[in-house]
Amino acid sequence: MIQPLIVKDKMKIGILGLGLIGGSLGFDLKSQGHYVLGVSRRESTCKKAMEIGSVDQAATELSLLSTAEIVFICTPIGLIVPQVEKLISHIPKTTIITDVGSVKTPIVQGISPLWKNFVGGHPMAGNTDVGIDAAQRNLFVDRPYVITPADNTPSHAIKILEEIVRSIGSIIYHCSPEKHDRAVSWISHLPVIVSASLVAACLDESDTEIFQLAQNFASSGFRDTSRVGAGNPELGVMMAQYNRQALINSLHQYRHNLDHFISLIEQENWEMLTEQLKLNQQSRPRFL
Amino acid sequence: MIQPLIVKDKMKIGILGLGLIGGSLGFDLKSQGHYVLGVSRRESTCKKAMEIGSVDQAATELSLLSTAEIVFICTPIGLIVPQVEKLISHIPKTTIITDVGSVKTPIVQGISPLWKNFVGGHPMAGNTDVGIDAAQRNLFVDRPYVITPADNTPSHAIKILEEIVRSIGSIIYHCSPEKHDRAVSWISHLPVIVSASLVAACLDESDTEIFQLAQNFASSGFRDTSRVGAGNPELGVMMAQYNRQALINSLHQYRHNLDHFISLIEQENWEMLTEQLKLNQQSRPRFL
Repeated sequence: MIQPLIVKDKMKIGILGLGLIGGSLGFDLKSQGHYVLGVSRRESTCKKAMEIGSVDQAATELSLLSTAEIVFICTPIGLIVPQVEKLISHIPKTTIITDVGSVKTPIVQGISPLWKNFVGGHPMAGNTDVGIDAAQRNLFVDRPYVITPADNTPSHAIKILEEIVRSIGSIIYHCSPEKHDRAVSWISHLPVIVSASLVAACLDESDTEIFQLAQNFASSGFRDTSRVGAGNPELGVMMAQYNRQALINSLHQYRHNLDHFISLIEQENWEMLTEQLKLNQQSRPRFL
Repeated sequence: MIQPLIVKDKMKIGILGLGLIGGSLGFDLKSQGHYVLGVSRRESTCKKAMEIGSVDQAATELSLLSTAEIVFICTPIGLIVPQVEKLISHIPKTTIITDVGSVKTPIVQGISPLWKNFVGGHPMAGNTDVGIDAAQRNLFVDRPYVITPADNTPSHAIKILEEIVRSIGSIIYHCSPEKHDRAVSWISHLPVIVSASLVAACLDESDTEIFQLAQNFASSGFRDTSRVGAGNPELGVMMAQYNRQALINSLHQYRHNLDHFISLIEQENWEMLTEQLKLNQQSRPRFL
């Protein structure tokens, strides 16, 4: 049991990508007493991150991270693997790399062959705002933080990441990248397309009077059900690109359930419809 | 312009059904100085309504309403027509009847042949609680109140209802029962089945580890999108029963839009997916 000592020491921690997640992580790591090195593509973001106290030092060059003991990759998902490819020429082989991408299989598959001390991760925190201006303290408290090690991931790298994650107040989960991606396809990515289809269907009403009335009458039911389907388009496309197969599987299962509801209503099978809605009412609290 | 005078006078107003809507209406009408007569099937509800000051007088017998100038039918939707059939033997032909049902075509079709002075209505207010205990003051302020007169509805009956609706702070809309039902099928009833299918699909995940992870990871996106699909089963079945055809039409259009999204993702048509999500993002605020 020597590992806990390693991270009780103050570490040099790198953050590559100073947006909502990277910036918020900086706040919390600095408040733990770690020395935080931040890298952003933009000079203005580096300046801002230092001003607000999210990092100790910031620069646009990856070489700033050469002395970091662990580096968090906090870029948009499509840049994670390309940035790691660039980063590894600047750091010693002992440096631990972890990422915060919301899809894990393609990231782990892309980085594992390049870097032994890599541990995939996914802090499930955030809000609709983006960028360093949205960064906040304690963003990760009581939120799930999923760690997706591979079979050959060094255990000391996992332990160090775990200790840091625990120190920022998150609830740690472990699973394979594939199981992570299938789980988030159900509760995070499927809802986006389900909700997007609802907005698109309403927009297709061709009777202008009905369309106007629908807009006037829409209330909390529509507001809640349509929210994630009308969010940031880039985020929606990214999750579909990077978690495509799991999302397609979820969508086909969803379509099957939708068809079942349509057929119950067409057949006026109110007894079965009642049963299904009762099951939903009983089961949903398990997800909250 | 004599009509406004009629309703500046204090009226005797009947409320049949003392639940959330009926009880709340009683509060606001009493505070306008009207004399409110309430009828409920249950003695205990009558007692409670008087105790809290929602009505001036209450009874379980319909004969209490014989002196009312206008009666609001606030029962569950399936009881509206049967209750009106019983009520009309107790009231003079001059009494105005209106209802608060959330579907209008079957109600208007059922009552119009029985009663000349009938005006269909739908106050779009409420919350997830039910019963007289959930009744509250000012529930209808700034909320839509849809009035669905037929071609032969007497104009003085419409005017009196309008004045009352205006006095409780609602925003008045007029449309045909059919257009009302098609509009609410988009923004109120379709979201229930869309959301219910989401919950049902997640419950069908057969890998127990993934199912458990999905429950642990579910956050605000799942919470909002699944809310109306796991609400009161009786309300869900009633809206499907009474607005069946409009809901089926909306569901078929929805399935068409869903299939389009699935095919964009299967074909990796990220450009079109981006366009559709951008359109959603731009258009949704019109519904809020």
